[in-house]
Amino acid sequence: MLQTVCCIHILCLSSVFTSPPKDGEDPFDTKDLPKNLGYVARMKDGVMYVYNDAAAADKHQPKDLPCPDYLTFIDDMNFLIALIAQGPTKTYTHRRLKFLMSKFNVHEMLNDMEELKELKINPHRDFYNCRKVDTHIHAAACMNQKHLLRFIKRSYRVDAERVVHSLKGREVTMKELFESLNLHPYDLTVDSLDVHAGRQTFQRFDKFNAKYNPVGASELRDLYLKTENHISGEYFATIIKEVASDLEDAKYQYAEPRLSIYGSNPIEWTKLSSWFVKHRVFSPNLKWMIQVPRIYDIFRGRDFVPHFGKMLENIFLPVFQATIDPQSNPELSIFLKHVTGFDSVDDESKHSGHMFSSKSPKPEEWDIAKNPSYTYYIYYMYANIAVLNQLRMQRGMNTFMFRPHCGEAGAITHLLAAFMTADNISHGLNLKKSPVLQYLYFLTQIPIAMSPLSNNSLFLEYAKNPLLEFQKKGLVVSLSTDDPMQFHYTKEPLMEEYAIAAQVFKLSTCDMCEIARNSVLQSSLSHEEKLHFLGQAYLKEGPEGNDIRKTNVAQIRMAYRYETLCYELNLIKEGLKTE
Amino acid sequence: MLQTVCCIHILCLSSVFTSPPKDGEDPFDTKDLPKNLGYVARMKDGVMYVYNDAAAADKHQPKDLPCPDYLTFIDDMNFLIALIAQGPTKTYTHRRLKFLMSKFNVHEMLNDMEELKELKINPHRDFYNCRKVDTHIHAAACMNQKHLLRFIKRSYRVDAERVVHSLKGREVTMKELFESLNLHPYDLTVDSLDVHAGRQTFQRFDKFNAKYNPVGASELRDLYLKTENHISGEYFATIIKEVASDLEDAKYQYAEPRLSIYGSNPIEWTKLSSWFVKHRVFSPNLKWMIQVPRIYDIFRGRDFVPHFGKMLENIFLPVFQATIDPQSNPELSIFLKHVTGFDSVDDESKHSGHMFSSKSPKPEEWDIAKNPSYTYYIYYMYANIAVLNQLRMQRGMNTFMFRPHCGEAGAITHLLAAFMTADNISHGLNLKKSPVLQYLYFLTQIPIAMSPLSNNSLFLEYAKNPLLEFQKKGLVVSLSTDDPMQFHYTKEPLMEEYAIAAQVFKLSTCDMCEIARNSVLQSSLSHEEKLHFLGQAYLKEGPEGNDIRKTNVAQIRMAYRYETLCYELNLIKEGLKTE
Repeated sequence: MLQTVCCIHILCLSSVFTSPPKDGEDPFDTKDLPKNLGYVARMKDGVMYVYNDAAAADKHQPKDLPCPDYLTFIDDMNFLIALIAQGPTKTYTHRRLKFLMSKFNVHEMLNDMEELKELKINPHRDFYNCRKVDTHIHAAACMNQKHLLRFIKRSYRVDAERVVHSLKGREVTMKELFESLNLHPYDLTVDSLDVHAGRQTFQRFDKFNAKYNPVGASELRDLYLKTENHISGEYFATIIKEVASDLEDAKYQYAEPRLSIYGSNPIEWTKLSSWFVKHRVFSPNLKWMIQVPRIYDIFRGRDFVPHFGKMLENIFLPVFQATIDPQSNPELSIFLKHVTGFDSVDDESKHSGHMFSSKSPKPEEWDIAKNPSYTYYIYYMYANIAVLNQLRMQRGMNTFMFRPHCGEAGAITHLLAAFMTADNISHGLNLKKSPVLQYLYFLTQIPIAMSPLSNNSLFLEYAKNPLLEFQKKGLVVSLSTDDPMQFHYTKEPLMEEYAIAAQVFKLSTCDMCEIARNSVLQSSLSHEEKLHFLGQAYLKEGPEGNDIRKTNVAQIRMAYRYETLCYELNLIKEGLKTE
Repeated sequence: MLQTVCCIHILCLSSVFTSPPKDGEDPFDTKDLPKNLGYVARMKDGVMYVYNDAAAADKHQPKDLPCPDYLTFIDDMNFLIALIAQGPTKTYTHRRLKFLMSKFNVHEMLNDMEELKELKINPHRDFYNCRKVDTHIHAAACMNQKHLLRFIKRSYRVDAERVVHSLKGREVTMKELFESLNLHPYDLTVDSLDVHAGRQTFQRFDKFNAKYNPVGASELRDLYLKTENHISGEYFATIIKEVASDLEDAKYQYAEPRLSIYGSNPIEWTKLSSWFVKHRVFSPNLKWMIQVPRIYDIFRGRDFVPHFGKMLENIFLPVFQATIDPQSNPELSIFLKHVTGFDSVDDESKHSGHMFSSKSPKPEEWDIAKNPSYTYYIYYMYANIAVLNQLRMQRGMNTFMFRPHCGEAGAITHLLAAFMTADNISHGLNLKKSPVLQYLYFLTQIPIAMSPLSNNSLFLEYAKNPLLEFQKKGLVVSLSTDDPMQFHYTKEPLMEEYAIAAQVFKLSTCDMCEIARNSVLQSSLSHEEKLHFLGQAYLKEGPEGNDIRKTNVAQIRMAYRYETLCYELNLIKEGLKTE
C-alpha cells in the first residue's frame, strides 16, 4: 500500500521555490527579462504542450515536458476510491488515528511542563515574534470591515467630484454614484455596509458571496474591491497596500492573498498584471496567489466560452506565452515573478452531478452548460501547472504551487483529488468523515490551512471544528483568516484567529508556535526567507530541522512528532514485508 | 413574595452618581476642599458611626445615618435561604426561566432581520463606535503580557543604573536586581515572563495568583505592579497611564480598574492616594474602584490585626475622616473623588467553614485565625458603605457603589448575599446552579459583569459559559476582561473579549450593542457621561429610555425586553392577589 500511496502522492508539486527581489532590487524592473525562446504553446485535450516551432505544433511533436497522464490519474483515483471504502482499511486507519490521539494526550500530560520549560529558557523568541503566515486569504476581503468603511468615507472626502464609474454608459462622479444608490458615505456604518457574515450565512454560501457587495451594491464592489474598473482598480490597490503596510509594521506576520483569474477571456492576465504593475502592489509581506473560480457553467450559460477547453486555454496560454517570450508581455512577466501558486475556489457544497472517468468528454468536447466535477477541474489545473513548472524551471524562473480549496464541504472525493495533486489544501474539514484519507494526509504530511472562524460562519460551529483533533494527531495544520472582511472584528485578524483558537481549544504556547511554524513551512515564502525564519536546517526532518531560537517550538515536541510519524510509516513497511 | 423581594433588594445602593471633573478643571485641585464638620467617626460592632463630637461618641449618640440592620439582614437572608431551597419555588422559577429562553429564541427567529434593518438605517452608529465599558478589570493586570514585557525591557534600557529596590535592607540598582535574579531583560520573552494563565491554572486559583509575579519573582511584581515600593510605584503608574492612553485613542472604550485596600493597617489609604496624586494617574477613560481582598485570616496569622473589626476600621475609618474633614488629608480627599465604588475579591472556591447567623461573633470579637464567611464580609462592607454614602451625600460628595466579585465559584449563598446588597456583581457563573436566584436576578435586573475568557482559564470552559443563556433570558449582562495580562493575546483586550463571544456564541450586532449598553448602564460612569453616551432619557425603562442613535440597540429589542420583564412581574402581582 505504501508504495502506491507514495507513488500517487509523488505527483504533487513539492519543493517549489520562489525568489523574492533582493534588497535594493526594484520588484518591477523589466530590464533583464529573458529572451524569447521562439517556442510555440498550444492546448490539446485540455493540457498545454510546448513545441519547438509552429511546424512541430502542427504535427504534434511536443517538447519533453511530461505531465501526469490522464489515464494514470484516473487509475490511481479509482484505486483510492476503492481504498477509502474498504472495510478493513477503514478499521485500521480509524484505530491508528484513535491511537495517535491518545498518544498525543499522553505526551501532553507527561511533557507539557517540559516543553514549556524549553520555551522559557529560549531567549528573545516567543509566540509574538515568531513568524506566522496567513496561508489562506482572499485579496478582495483582506481588509476588515472597519477598514473598508473608513476607506470609503475617506475616498469620498477626497474624491467626491472625481469620475469613478460608468452608469449605463454615462460617466458619473463618486457623488453621483452614491446618490444613485440613495446613500451618503457620511451616514454609512459597519451595519449598513453589511459585509460581515452573520447567522444568516450559515450553510448559505450564496448569501455569503453576496456579502462581497458593500451595502448590497455591486457598483461599490466594482469601485472598491476590483482590479478592473473605471479607475483601473486604484482604490483596491490602495486598500491592499494599507493592509500590507499594517503587516510590515507588525513585522512577524505575512499573508498570501488570492487574486482571481476566471478564464472567461484571454486578456484577463494582461489586465491583472497591468493593475499590479501600475499601482506597484508589492510588499515583502505579501505572497500572491491566483485563484480560479470553478464557474465554467456560468460562462458557458452566458456564451463567454464555447467549451471548457477554452476556459483552460484562457487561464494557461497567456502564462505559457509570457514564459516562452517574457518580453512580449513585460508586465505579465513581472507579475508572474510575484505569483507563487494557484488555488481553485468555489462553493464545494454544490454538487455537479458529473463523475470523472475515462469516458468523460475531453475539455474541448465539454460544451454542455453543466459544470464539470471538482476532480475534473483539479486534474486539468494540476496537469497544466505541472507542465508550466517544468518549462519555467528550465528557464530558471520561479514555479507555482498548487494549493486548492478542498474539503470545506461537498463530497470526500474532493479530498482524494487534492491528495493526489496538491502541495497543500485550504480547509480540509471533511477529513473528519474519512479515516482513510485523514490517515493518508497524516502519513504524507500534506499541510492543511484551516480557517475555523470562516467555518464557524459557513459550515461548522467553532467548538466542533476538527482543528484541535488534527493538530493532536499530527496532521500538519496552520491557521488562516480566509476573509477578514466577513469574519473578523479586530485590527489584527490573524492574531484574532490564533487568539480564539488558543482560548477555545486551550492551546499551549508550544502548540501555537508549532502551528505558526507549519504556516511558514507550507507557505510560498522563498527558500531564503524560510532559512531566515525557520533556521538553516529547516528542510531536514524531525528535531534536526527545527531551530528553537527561531521557531520557539520545543525540541521535545519535534522529537515526538518525528518518532510518531516514523513509527506509523514503519508499521506499514513491516506489514508489507509479511504480505 | 414580590414585596419581600423588592424590600430586600431595595437595600442596595442604587442611583449612586459620581461627577467627573468638568472640562478644564484640574482633577487634582485641592483648592476648594470642603471645610471640617468637626464630627467624630468611630467603629462599633463592625460598623462606622458618626457623632457630633467626642462626648456624643462616648455616650454612643450617633447622628441619624441609618444603616441596614444586622438582624434584619440575617432575617432576610434566612428567608431567602429557605426560598431558594423550596421545591415549588424551584419548579416555578425553573419553568419561567425555560420559558424566557424559548420566548427569546422565538423573538430572535421572528425579529432578527427586523432588528438588523433598524440598525442598518441608523446612521453613524455601529458596534465599533458605541460606548463600551470594561466593567471588571484589575489594575495590576490591566496591561497585556506583551505590554508588560516591552515596558520591562524599556525601563531597563533607560534606568539600569537607577536604585529601584531594596534587597535585604541594601539599596540596589535595577541592574543589580536583575542580576540577583539571574536574569537579563534583553533575553526576556513572553514565555519566560510567564504571567499568562494556561492549562495549569484551571481550577487552581492559587497557581493563577502566582501568575501576578513576572518570571515568578515577587521582586518584579513589587517593582512593576505595585503602588508602594522603592520608586513610589512610578512604573506601575506609567504602565496604567499607557493603558489609559490606548483607551483614549480608541475613544469608545472605558475601563474600571480595581486598586487594593487590604485593611492590614490604617495608612494604606494615605499611601495609595499619595501615589495617585503624585503620579497624576488620571484619565477620563478610567473609573477607579477599590477592591478589598478577603484575607483577614492571613493578616491575623501574621498578627497584623488583632481582630476582624480592626481590619474593617483600617478600611473605613480613613475614608470617614477624609469625608468629615477633607483638608486633614487633601490627597485622600482628591483620590476619593475619583473612586467610584468598592469590590470584594478573593478565591470564592475556598470554603471558610463559618456560617453567618445572629450568633456569629461581632467583628471586634472575631479574633480567631479563621476567615469569616463571604456573607459576613459582604454584610460589613455593605453596611459601612451605606453609612458612608449617606454622610457623603449630605456633604454633596460623590458616593460609592458596591460591586463585589460574586458567584465565580463557591457556595450559592454568595449570590444570595450579593443579591441583598450589591449594585451589581462580577462573574455570577453560579446563578446556573440556582433557578430561584437566577430568576430573582432577572426580576430585579441586577447587572452581572461576566468574563468568559477568565472563567475559561480558571473555572469553566468557554463553550459552557452561561453568558449566552443569561443574555437570552434577559438578565443584564456585560462583558469584561478581568485580567488582560493573564488572559488576552491582542492589543485590544476588551475587543478580543467581545469578538470571541460574538464568534463562539454567534451574537448578532444587536446582541453586542445591547451588552455594550448594559456595560455603560452598570458602570460607574457619571450621570453626565451616561446622558451623553446613552441619550437624555436613559433612566427611563423600556424603549423610551433607549436612544438608538447613541446605543445602536434596536427598539424592537428594547420593547421585547420591557414587555417580557413586565409580564413576569405582573404574573407575580396577579399571583399575590389570588393568595
